[in-house]
Amino acid sequence: MNLSKHVSLDINIRDIAMSPTMAINDRVKVLKREGKKIYDFGIGQSPFPVPTPVVDALKLYAQEKDYLPAKGLPALREAVAGFHTIKDNVNVNPDYVLIGPGSKQLMFLLQIAFYGEIVVPTPCWVTYVPQAMILGKKVRLIHTTFEDKWHMTAKALTEFLESEHDLYRPRILVLNYPGNPDGLTYDKDEIKNIADVARKYELILLSDEIYGQLHHKGEHISVARFYPEGTIISSGLSKWCGAGGWRLGTFAFPKDLDWLMDSMASIASETYTSVCSPIQYAAVHAFKGGVSIERYLWHSRRILSVLGGECYKILHDAGIRIYPPEGGFYLFLDFTPFAEHLSKKGIYDSMTLCEQLLHEKGIALIPGVAFERPSTELTARLSYVNFNGTKTLTASEPLDKLPEGFVMQMCEETIEGIKMITDWIK
Amino acid sequence: MNLSKHVSLDINIRDIAMSPTMAINDRVKVLKREGKKIYDFGIGQSPFPVPTPVVDALKLYAQEKDYLPAKGLPALREAVAGFHTIKDNVNVNPDYVLIGPGSKQLMFLLQIAFYGEIVVPTPCWVTYVPQAMILGKKVRLIHTTFEDKWHMTAKALTEFLESEHDLYRPRILVLNYPGNPDGLTYDKDEIKNIADVARKYELILLSDEIYGQLHHKGEHISVARFYPEGTIISSGLSKWCGAGGWRLGTFAFPKDLDWLMDSMASIASETYTSVCSPIQYAAVHAFKGGVSIERYLWHSRRILSVLGGECYKILHDAGIRIYPPEGGFYLFLDFTPFAEHLSKKGIYDSMTLCEQLLHEKGIALIPGVAFERPSTELTARLSYVNFNGTKTLTASEPLDKLPEGFVMQMCEETIEGIKMITDWIK
Repeated sequence: MNLSKHVSLDINIRDIAMSPTMAINDRVKVLKREGKKIYDFGIGQSPFPVPTPVVDALKLYAQEKDYLPAKGLPALREAVAGFHTIKDNVNVNPDYVLIGPGSKQLMFLLQIAFYGEIVVPTPCWVTYVPQAMILGKKVRLIHTTFEDKWHMTAKALTEFLESEHDLYRPRILVLNYPGNPDGLTYDKDEIKNIADVARKYELILLSDEIYGQLHHKGEHISVARFYPEGTIISSGLSKWCGAGGWRLGTFAFPKDLDWLMDSMASIASETYTSVCSPIQYAAVHAFKGGVSIERYLWHSRRILSVLGGECYKILHDAGIRIYPPEGGFYLFLDFTPFAEHLSKKGIYDSMTLCEQLLHEKGIALIPGVAFERPSTELTARLSYVNFNGTKTLTASEPLDKLPEGFVMQMCEETIEGIKMITDWIK
Repeated sequence: MNLSKHVSLDINIRDIAMSPTMAINDRVKVLKREGKKIYDFGIGQSPFPVPTPVVDALKLYAQEKDYLPAKGLPALREAVAGFHTIKDNVNVNPDYVLIGPGSKQLMFLLQIAFYGEIVVPTPCWVTYVPQAMILGKKVRLIHTTFEDKWHMTAKALTEFLESEHDLYRPRILVLNYPGNPDGLTYDKDEIKNIADVARKYELILLSDEIYGQLHHKGEHISVARFYPEGTIISSGLSKWCGAGGWRLGTFAFPKDLDWLMDSMASIASETYTSVCSPIQYAAVHAFKGGVSIERYLWHSRRILSVLGGECYKILHDAGIRIYPPEGGFYLFLDFTPFAEHLSKKGIYDSMTLCEQLLHEKGIALIPGVAFERPSTELTARLSYVNFNGTKTLTASEPLDKLPEGFVMQMCEETIEGIKMITDWIK
């Protein structure tokens, strides 16, 4: 956009650029087209194909053309409720499930509808703050630390709330675990303690559990188990089902928040109307699950766990501050120990760090600042999905145990890129 | 929503209910489930199936799972540009095409991004005003009259603009033709005159031409032919391609409005991300067209034209004020001549009129007030699509000429419902 030109843009919009993940994705495409070798650790997309039975279901329902109800196809709302009941041991009622074109869009509707504050621990997903900016709202951030495993503790949350003069102002606290950008998750005690604080201060929790089924051990625990009356569970097809491009997200509400769901559905009916019909019919099969989908999940987790572990080891051994991943497909790298070394290259912030890595080595990471970390903190997100997911999944499926060197062979480029980072930092 | 309950809703949202078309659709479903006979003239959905080659394309691309660029799949943007170039004789550049999950959603992004006024002639599509309400904005209405064929004249537009103290304030004027709710369209001279006024006062035109390809004679004329530098053409798959439930809309911008497109794409990347990938790939085939799609369109138009003409005749002969339809599948009924008769039934406004018709005769219409007409005006929209589109299309295809009584036989329920209205009004 050429801003020297006469434009009539809303003041909230003038500062909104392409989202950093989308922007890096577009830039990487350009560099690739120019023939440059790129190690694309930027985009947060599942490397795996959509499971065959789900693709087959889409073909079967391809001719579905009717508008569906704004809240979603009843059979899908039922399947999603069943999914959370079985997988998360949380009692979800189909009447309180809302389907949207991506959980990102549902989050935006939530920000439009909700009168009150959004509170988010950082590092956090790149989208919460720009969405608030678009709407002229503010997001309150709670910064966590490397030492705390990038976790918000119940203590830190209590301190944040107690420092306010208005203890019970309407607030939504966003949790996201397994986490983007850190690949870490909360254990049962931590999550239970946070639930207790939320109940005490009457916080609404938006629990973004889109990576829940990609917990590397399949042991995801929803906070809704400990605070069912105040928790909205956010999920969707994008991550565990490999269907990011299909655009289907889900919110599961407690009964007491029906007013929020109903308002969001009204906004939906005035904006996107309803989610693509063939996709909703196909998604029923995904959320209902079954043996072949369980097998797909089991192998997806195993590959991500082993590969993530390998990446961690190499980076950790090189001196980068990092934790072993527990779910999803991200690592959050902290280059602070190399601050002096980097300063000699003129690097004092995460944006320059990532620009230099892309420029010098063709390595695409997302800078920590995009996740609302202080701009001078030398952190960045690495998404270890630049391998052929279909090939790797197919190779894994017949194997009881992955042999030594499996990921080295199947995900060669990933490992190569990781090593390039350690070479560059030396 | 139970508003006696404690809720934290944004003040702009508290008044937003389900959109009237969606609401009537939901209510009709309930009545049908209760076993009531309903003549559903409420929902504005194409009765025809998605053309077979387009459904086949969706099956072919069912496994596409990657996120696509926020502006849309390049091949689709090219196909849409080609579509407008060939069909509308307007030179559209693929670089200035934006793909969204329905043109309704794109309109919402436009309202978020644009700093300035939205001006809309009435009767207008039900959504513009609620979208503005959600965002805390205002829409300026220009009321048209039955005598002017529900058209906004260049003269009325000039008068509206000249009555303002700020002639050149940033404004978008929304045109929609063939029109929802009136089924009427502008002729070349009318549209040319409006284009001239728009140029003179530097208005941006949003030309909602979603029913363009359903002009009953296939003679739709885009205003972009006369004001290319200031016109955004809105279109999509929902109406001419029978794929409302697929959710794919398009905006074609002039080069000078690239700043608006870029901002909308940025908002897209922070909200719905991109449109469903398999749908975008399939849509390429729809917009590229070809013999079988042309044949589908030709038969669709013929059926809608003949059926619309029949409905018009019956209603007109009964004394209802109405014009013969020219495009799409709507009639806008004006019961003003029956005002005295209706007042005896306690009907003084369009909402009560529609409620009584649904209650007494099971006839679902949308009240004129939903289209921003004065609430006491006795008008309502009738959508003549309650027939089996697949069956009717199949029956039409081998016929050079529709025999006498074709629609009477194929669209029996539609005609029956129309006659019920005239019985009721007597």
